[in-house]
Amino acid sequence: MALKKKPVTGMKDMLPAEMEIRDYVIGLIKDTYKTFGFSSMETPCVEHIENLCSKQGGDNEKLIFKILKRGEKLKIDTAKEELDLVDGGLRYDLTVPLARYYANHANELPSPFKAMQIGNVWRADRPQRGRFRQFMQCDIDILGEAGNLAEIELILATTAMLGKLDFHNFTVCINDRNILKAMASYSGFKEEDYDEVFIILDKMDKIGADGVKAELQEMGYSAENVDTYLGLFDEISGDVEGIRFCKEKLAGHLDVEIADSMEMIISSVESAKEAEFKVKFDPTLVRGQSYYTGTIFEVVMDEFGGSVAGGGRYDKMIGKFTGQDTPACGFSIGFERIVMLLLENGYEVPTRREKKAYLLEKNMHKEGILKVLAMAKADREAGKQVLIANMKKNKKFQKEQLNADGYLDIVDCYRDSVGEL
Amino acid sequence: MALKKKPVTGMKDMLPAEMEIRDYVIGLIKDTYKTFGFSSMETPCVEHIENLCSKQGGDNEKLIFKILKRGEKLKIDTAKEELDLVDGGLRYDLTVPLARYYANHANELPSPFKAMQIGNVWRADRPQRGRFRQFMQCDIDILGEAGNLAEIELILATTAMLGKLDFHNFTVCINDRNILKAMASYSGFKEEDYDEVFIILDKMDKIGADGVKAELQEMGYSAENVDTYLGLFDEISGDVEGIRFCKEKLAGHLDVEIADSMEMIISSVESAKEAEFKVKFDPTLVRGQSYYTGTIFEVVMDEFGGSVAGGGRYDKMIGKFTGQDTPACGFSIGFERIVMLLLENGYEVPTRREKKAYLLEKNMHKEGILKVLAMAKADREAGKQVLIANMKKNKKFQKEQLNADGYLDIVDCYRDSVGEL
Repeated sequence: MALKKKPVTGMKDMLPAEMEIRDYVIGLIKDTYKTFGFSSMETPCVEHIENLCSKQGGDNEKLIFKILKRGEKLKIDTAKEELDLVDGGLRYDLTVPLARYYANHANELPSPFKAMQIGNVWRADRPQRGRFRQFMQCDIDILGEAGNLAEIELILATTAMLGKLDFHNFTVCINDRNILKAMASYSGFKEEDYDEVFIILDKMDKIGADGVKAELQEMGYSAENVDTYLGLFDEISGDVEGIRFCKEKLAGHLDVEIADSMEMIISSVESAKEAEFKVKFDPTLVRGQSYYTGTIFEVVMDEFGGSVAGGGRYDKMIGKFTGQDTPACGFSIGFERIVMLLLENGYEVPTRREKKAYLLEKNMHKEGILKVLAMAKADREAGKQVLIANMKKNKKFQKEQLNADGYLDIVDCYRDSVGEL
Repeated sequence: MALKKKPVTGMKDMLPAEMEIRDYVIGLIKDTYKTFGFSSMETPCVEHIENLCSKQGGDNEKLIFKILKRGEKLKIDTAKEELDLVDGGLRYDLTVPLARYYANHANELPSPFKAMQIGNVWRADRPQRGRFRQFMQCDIDILGEAGNLAEIELILATTAMLGKLDFHNFTVCINDRNILKAMASYSGFKEEDYDEVFIILDKMDKIGADGVKAELQEMGYSAENVDTYLGLFDEISGDVEGIRFCKEKLAGHLDVEIADSMEMIISSVESAKEAEFKVKFDPTLVRGQSYYTGTIFEVVMDEFGGSVAGGGRYDKMIGKFTGQDTPACGFSIGFERIVMLLLENGYEVPTRREKKAYLLEKNMHKEGILKVLAMAKADREAGKQVLIANMKKNKKFQKEQLNADGYLDIVDCYRDSVGEL
């Protein structure tokens, strides 16, 4: 079989310039989340196929990279379908593995458990610009905390991190699955139709209110219900007034505590935020994953034209592993989008070390090399980044390349002169 | 299908205590290697099956986790063997992907290219204590540097890093494939038998010289050849004298430059090393991978009773991708072994942030929460790690747990007293 030079379809080799930013952002994320009391944790990249195909991942379950059984367990002759051939798959998110992890280790973990995960996930999506089949996710989750302190801290931590990367022009949009449901209920939709209605509502930012109205009517929903529904969105403002309006208007359909809690989250975040950004109540926010049970949120960045982070409450997932529900809420950053934005903005990683290069004449004698090694050691001990390289025939070009790579202090070391350095 | 709580066989969930050490060690490795001028880079975890099964990985190729084809490309009905079903696999090391990466990107990379890779690799090995099917490797490689400056810098960087983790009681063992061959040639073995002879020689540290002698004779090699061979090992000392002895004794079988270069490597490392350790010429060092072409080295740690890092020169691998050989040399740390040793030694990660916790009385009013959030914000800005949690019924137990987790400064926040805090 011939060797292949390109990476596998849809996955990406990371060049040093991008890696410098990635490493920096990962360090900053870990450091910021730590100050909020989140602890690093990790699960294997390979997950049981049963856990990945448990209907919690929605469409992502269609995109799993599946792993072939090994040894005697693999029976190619009698295999009828994919699941006969595989026993594992690459995780498509960090949330399902986190639920398994918590179910497995709850006794060894603090309660509530504030988890921070940074790791790759894989989806066999159709390759397209800026979307890759292996990409990094950075999640924080609070497990075992039923109150909205979880939401408040997740939003404060995520936005503090974005602020440290010099992002300010962004909006945190918040909604609650229960408000979505109450609005649908108030408008006369039947409970079994909610999911379908929400899928159409989710297109609001793309097709507008008229588009949503048209699609709902096409699906056969009564004009009266659709008009009532869309009328609500006109009346609801994107601030705490909007929430208070919902609380009053949707009385009988919406639990009062839900509205009060939403108001509390928004005003707490407004009051304690570490970065400059807007918080907005967005009753059109849906979020795809079916596992959300309460609050949902997203970070929208104007310069990106879309969401760069998202999350919400999923109080029923851990119970699927343990038989006992555990409150859970998480926020996930679109790491690849953040890095893409930083690269596009020409972001410069701060506080680099001073860089120094020694160029050795061809066939430098032993004494010369020992001398240079000793000088390099002293430079490194003084905190410098030091490169030792053999001098090339085209030294001018070599130095230009080194300059471009940040090595401004370049020492030429010749056999005859090295003693004087 | 029932959900599973345990991780997949042979792979491991990482608990926060271990993750703290892992994160710290990764940070230290990146920082140290950077001062030696290595640049971060990354390849996807999934690699073309053709590249993984190219007979460069030796026995590791039997242990590949293979990835099922997707969509129309998967034809279960007509599949006869594994390779009909798969198109990718999880990488079993970082070296083969690095060679592909360099072949793909050489024009965009500096020359020589000093690469640093930290990433997971996967091998479907028989599960056993301390060995996992997903494990992290940390490699540095210098590509495009034919001279022994590569070996010297790789050894200096790796040992500097081990020194910063307070490891000192270790030995760097060095040999050269060409010395191995010259010794076998001198002793009268035929070239086609070298590999078999080296596999037996590799057991020297386990079965001793008598065991090696017995096995070689069992394989049918002449007593004369075997005696000459083992006699050499008796005479060769583990220092530069040993190398000089080889240079003289193996004249006609060993290129003089190989011996001179080995001597140069050992004396340079001795002279410029940043940590306390021993360097030893070890003519019995073999190293399994078939891709090594020159120098080979290993770090042996007494307290571990085995190798914690290994590497060598592999000048022929990149040529398999490009058709043109490129000098290459690398050193890989057994990250999992290092972490295991640190955990066993009760290693404490230095320079932690001061930790402070606020405990909120049940149903704390909004004003109280806002006050606590403001105080926490100020603490974080002052560099502290701050946890906000709801007070539990058994507050004494809660505080004991927080203390154990390093939160020594704990503030009780009651509805009535929060204004006075």
